[in-house]
Amino acid sequence: MGPQHRDQSNEHCALDLTASENQSTSVDVSQCVNGSVLKPYGTRIVTLEKVLEVAREIGLEGLTIKEVSRRLRVTPAAIYKRVRSKEKLEALVVAQEFADLTLPEDPGNVREYLFRLCRCYLEFCLEHPGFVEASMFHADSRERRLSYQKVLDTLMRYGYSIGVADDLAASVENIAHGLYVYIRRMYSAVGRTDFVYRVGGYRITIDQMLAIMMSPCIDGLLACSDPAFEETRIFEELHRGLPEGFVPPLQQDDSTPEVAPGE
Amino acid sequence: MGPQHRDQSNEHCALDLTASENQSTSVDVSQCVNGSVLKPYGTRIVTLEKVLEVAREIGLEGLTIKEVSRRLRVTPAAIYKRVRSKEKLEALVVAQEFADLTLPEDPGNVREYLFRLCRCYLEFCLEHPGFVEASMFHADSRERRLSYQKVLDTLMRYGYSIGVADDLAASVENIAHGLYVYIRRMYSAVGRTDFVYRVGGYRITIDQMLAIMMSPCIDGLLACSDPAFEETRIFEELHRGLPEGFVPPLQQDDSTPEVAPGE
Repeated sequence: MGPQHRDQSNEHCALDLTASENQSTSVDVSQCVNGSVLKPYGTRIVTLEKVLEVAREIGLEGLTIKEVSRRLRVTPAAIYKRVRSKEKLEALVVAQEFADLTLPEDPGNVREYLFRLCRCYLEFCLEHPGFVEASMFHADSRERRLSYQKVLDTLMRYGYSIGVADDLAASVENIAHGLYVYIRRMYSAVGRTDFVYRVGGYRITIDQMLAIMMSPCIDGLLACSDPAFEETRIFEELHRGLPEGFVPPLQQDDSTPEVAPGE
Repeated sequence: MGPQHRDQSNEHCALDLTASENQSTSVDVSQCVNGSVLKPYGTRIVTLEKVLEVAREIGLEGLTIKEVSRRLRVTPAAIYKRVRSKEKLEALVVAQEFADLTLPEDPGNVREYLFRLCRCYLEFCLEHPGFVEASMFHADSRERRLSYQKVLDTLMRYGYSIGVADDLAASVENIAHGLYVYIRRMYSAVGRTDFVYRVGGYRITIDQMLAIMMSPCIDGLLACSDPAFEETRIFEELHRGLPEGFVPPLQQDDSTPEVAPGE
């Protein structure tokens, strides 16, 4: 999803106003071709890169087309020429933020790797407020993420098949998202994120608490993901272990092959 | 958080317009005291109950003060007399929706109970779009929820102390929220929720997939929550099991007692 229809001939007209954002209106008029600086809400053309840059400065939580247009001093219509809707803009921002994700090094131990991965996702979500909320409503493009491929590669070095590696990685993300919702609520309740739990004779910090909360889930995942087993066998075993009547029995796939989501 | 400052003397003036919502403007004028029906956006007084009823009809996803005022045919100011902000209104709606949560029966097996509880939370979130998103930004009032108390009571019948029961119940909610984020994304990708995964020779429905995904997490939780142990001992064991250097060592609490969040 690169920039589309970029009108190169007009690019010299796209003023960089971000530097002067906090300095009232000190714009270099000599750079301006058609004097549109005098009409601050003119129909100057902005590039998609510029729109995205400003959108990321605003952050996902307060992102509106109006705010982008205000900061770039163009009409909302000029923004809509680059991105069709707020949702499209959000999707582009989400994709870019994810591209910046710095994965943990592989510490040479799969359990520790999953812990570090889970904490990495969680910290990323906390550092990008609105990311989980916005990315919820956008197509899951995990398989297009370069970082996700790296995670799969790391897990496959431990002997997991691609299907099992995919399930493990997706589940670790789910755990991180659940913990993110938890922290957001606690933050609303307490008004800060450095709160301390008192358990018995201990003061447990939020960082310790989160590690302790992710621990049984990650150990449970590992216990159910023997690298010697194929994905099908793991699914069969997990299904067999469900409470009786909880979900219908597994159905053989006798339909013509079709691309499943995520493939 | 019950209705505040309800002006009983004005209640007869609050017209029930919800029934005529789809029928243009057939209002019983005889019920109206000061003829404000002729001025559809007048300053008639609405009760908090009415505001909440309409807010729940709209649903959390499209909820704005403007939309509530439009449906009740009063000015936004009349709504702001009842609820201070959109956020306060959201919090009230969240609290009411949660009050309606129907918990699963205890099937007499704690593992099966946690599975049913997790699915119950997940289905509730799916049936109330916007609930997770909105409740993320409101103080966690779990301990004030009647339904949450019932969950704790059920778990304590299995021998768990209140602290361990609380951790189990909170973790099951976290798992459900993580799965909710997952489904929302899959829905965005595929455009429907009845999608089928093809794993080996099986067609796995979304319902089966979700049960299979929650399975290792719930089993992991149970494995780490021996009812014979006190919460402190469980925390100590989980902390000891973390990768070396992942979080700082547990600190003794030698400060003066203070109320921790959630107590």
